[in-house]
Amino acid sequence: MISEKMIKLAQNNSAIRAMFEEGNQMAALYGRENVYDFSLGNPNFPAPAAVKKAVTDIISSEDSVFVHGYMSNAGFESTREAVALSLNKRFGTAFGIGNIIMSVGAAGGLNVVLKTLLNPGDEVVTFSPYFVEYGNYVRNYDGVLVAVEPNLKDFQPDPDMLSSCITAKTKAVIINSPNNPTGVVYSADSIRKIAAVLEAKQKEYGTSIFIISDEPYRELAYDGVDVPYLTKFYKNTIVCYSWSKSLSLPGERIGYIVVPSEADEFRLVFDAACIATRVSGFVNAPSLQQLVVARCVNEMTDVNAYDNNRQLLYKGLTDSGFTCIYPQGAFYMWMKTPADDKEFSNAAKKFNILVVPGASFGCPGYVRIAYCVAKKTIERSLPSFKKLAEEYGLKS
Amino acid sequence: MISEKMIKLAQNNSAIRAMFEEGNQMAALYGRENVYDFSLGNPNFPAPAAVKKAVTDIISSEDSVFVHGYMSNAGFESTREAVALSLNKRFGTAFGIGNIIMSVGAAGGLNVVLKTLLNPGDEVVTFSPYFVEYGNYVRNYDGVLVAVEPNLKDFQPDPDMLSSCITAKTKAVIINSPNNPTGVVYSADSIRKIAAVLEAKQKEYGTSIFIISDEPYRELAYDGVDVPYLTKFYKNTIVCYSWSKSLSLPGERIGYIVVPSEADEFRLVFDAACIATRVSGFVNAPSLQQLVVARCVNEMTDVNAYDNNRQLLYKGLTDSGFTCIYPQGAFYMWMKTPADDKEFSNAAKKFNILVVPGASFGCPGYVRIAYCVAKKTIERSLPSFKKLAEEYGLKS
Repeated sequence: MISEKMIKLAQNNSAIRAMFEEGNQMAALYGRENVYDFSLGNPNFPAPAAVKKAVTDIISSEDSVFVHGYMSNAGFESTREAVALSLNKRFGTAFGIGNIIMSVGAAGGLNVVLKTLLNPGDEVVTFSPYFVEYGNYVRNYDGVLVAVEPNLKDFQPDPDMLSSCITAKTKAVIINSPNNPTGVVYSADSIRKIAAVLEAKQKEYGTSIFIISDEPYRELAYDGVDVPYLTKFYKNTIVCYSWSKSLSLPGERIGYIVVPSEADEFRLVFDAACIATRVSGFVNAPSLQQLVVARCVNEMTDVNAYDNNRQLLYKGLTDSGFTCIYPQGAFYMWMKTPADDKEFSNAAKKFNILVVPGASFGCPGYVRIAYCVAKKTIERSLPSFKKLAEEYGLKS
Repeated sequence: MISEKMIKLAQNNSAIRAMFEEGNQMAALYGRENVYDFSLGNPNFPAPAAVKKAVTDIISSEDSVFVHGYMSNAGFESTREAVALSLNKRFGTAFGIGNIIMSVGAAGGLNVVLKTLLNPGDEVVTFSPYFVEYGNYVRNYDGVLVAVEPNLKDFQPDPDMLSSCITAKTKAVIINSPNNPTGVVYSADSIRKIAAVLEAKQKEYGTSIFIISDEPYRELAYDGVDVPYLTKFYKNTIVCYSWSKSLSLPGERIGYIVVPSEADEFRLVFDAACIATRVSGFVNAPSLQQLVVARCVNEMTDVNAYDNNRQLLYKGLTDSGFTCIYPQGAFYMWMKTPADDKEFSNAAKKFNILVVPGASFGCPGYVRIAYCVAKKTIERSLPSFKKLAEEYGLKS
């Protein structure tokens, strides 16, 4: 009766979201403090004080009709200018407001970009493990997601494996660095090699292949690691950003798209993306939050707190005998499982620990542990992780 | 290169939105007060004071992680409960939180519902004249929009004309009352007849045919006219609501979907709509605004001000010799044009008057005049309308 695509999706609902609901149920049963819910990338840290101040100032001093009203589908010009200036200052780019479209988070931005680019049957490549929704987003526009096999050595993208996945139908490659779920930051060297592969393939096929840089974790990087700005490496790069993590505003659905002027058919791509924003039903990014981020464009969440969590959790897990990728960015720990990852994540539930099986990211044999939680949650969870390790015969 | 669907759309961009941009250009040239921009449904009245108070209270008293954080894709339970209770109180319905999904405005809601329902080739019927985006929304899911010929007598929906448009492929009928662009409110008698047609057709074809009630203008009704609540007339009704007009929050993208428990395959439709909210990239309705509307669910914009505009404009236009439908709802005047509607709307620009040709709504020979503007704008525009009437030989 209803959409067959949606029936399939309803039967095969997101494991992550299901776990979110399960976590809430467990919290009701055992008390929130006794559930170690590492399942969702829902920042547990408050937005910076500047956000509260911005909301208060805007609401008390600006005209209601302006604050809550329509604007161009691309967003308020003042916000787009603030974004462009901030990027230019930080990354030496030369964007203007004509390169920026405000989006309903990165999820909204990715959908707008994919709707803009894809014809049915077009292929979109990404590196395993990858954010499970990419597949849904690509299928929304009858595209085909092609997942590059994971590079189990260090989870850096492998240019040769990428090359073997590119065909004449490849319209885009989604890159997510700092990476969800591995926490790996793609190095400048990796990016340069990816760019070289795509340049060569564009020539070989006479096509345009876009990099879609999904970068909600851009500012969450540790140990001073460099997170390369991709438009500087490859001109057909479209950036999708979100303040969900950097300002702890995931529920507000506020982000932006960057289309650089040097991209192929820039004018058409930019205009089509504005129209896609409208016809997809987003219309525009939420207006008040657009004004808030314009004032907070140089603000940041407490990265040190995430860093402390990262070190505490990494030490605790490895001390218990687990093997993890030491994450350089984002707020995820990517841990090898001593058994099937689904079985392991079920076993973890007995200890009130919620983690997401790697299979959900196209990479079995691992689990993702989201450490965007209170430090106390990590501290309290470590003895349970230890018991879990012991159950699998791991040695501390 | 890019999506062929989007190239077509970019070439044939929304006349309304184009006029919005044109209005801004004219305002820069002649001064905002000398441009009579009736092109867009962008409320010129501020949000009720309760909205400002709600934002301030929430931001100062609630926890940032809660206010700006993720919640279930369907939205905060507290908000969904407030919506259900308000509907039940006002319309004698019996909704619970399990019937409500918060949406990114009505545009987001309509897209979620159409994504949930449509298979490629499915038909969606609506009555001309209609909001031009319906066609885009339906085509997003490879459906076909079927427009019932306008009933030029009084613009009430004609059940016989509807009946002749229903086929075995009809999945839904979009009803928009109070209507954009005519301002007509569909009577209980009209709704009863539509319901009877659809009941009969469901039996004839053995299908489920949904009414999608797009009702952002529900509360904007004048002269005490009754706006029937459609779920009470037809069980397969899905409601898409927005606070864009009733609370003057169009830029905030906040609304809801109602799926009544008695709808066919309720469980599947509701769950699929939650998933569609997620995979379409909306993820959830903006969180702060969800909390705001929960506190303002019984607040209203200044309907009297719209009513005053309505009467002032109707009198002015008819005094100049124009023929208009006397609107019972929404904030649009639907005016017969003394010449081709596109030619007429171009002629109007010479007098700095911006109105949208009826052809944009599938009904040539009329223009839509959005009177959600300052009263002064109407007052100042009337002499120009008079001159325009004279140019076409109309007699006052």
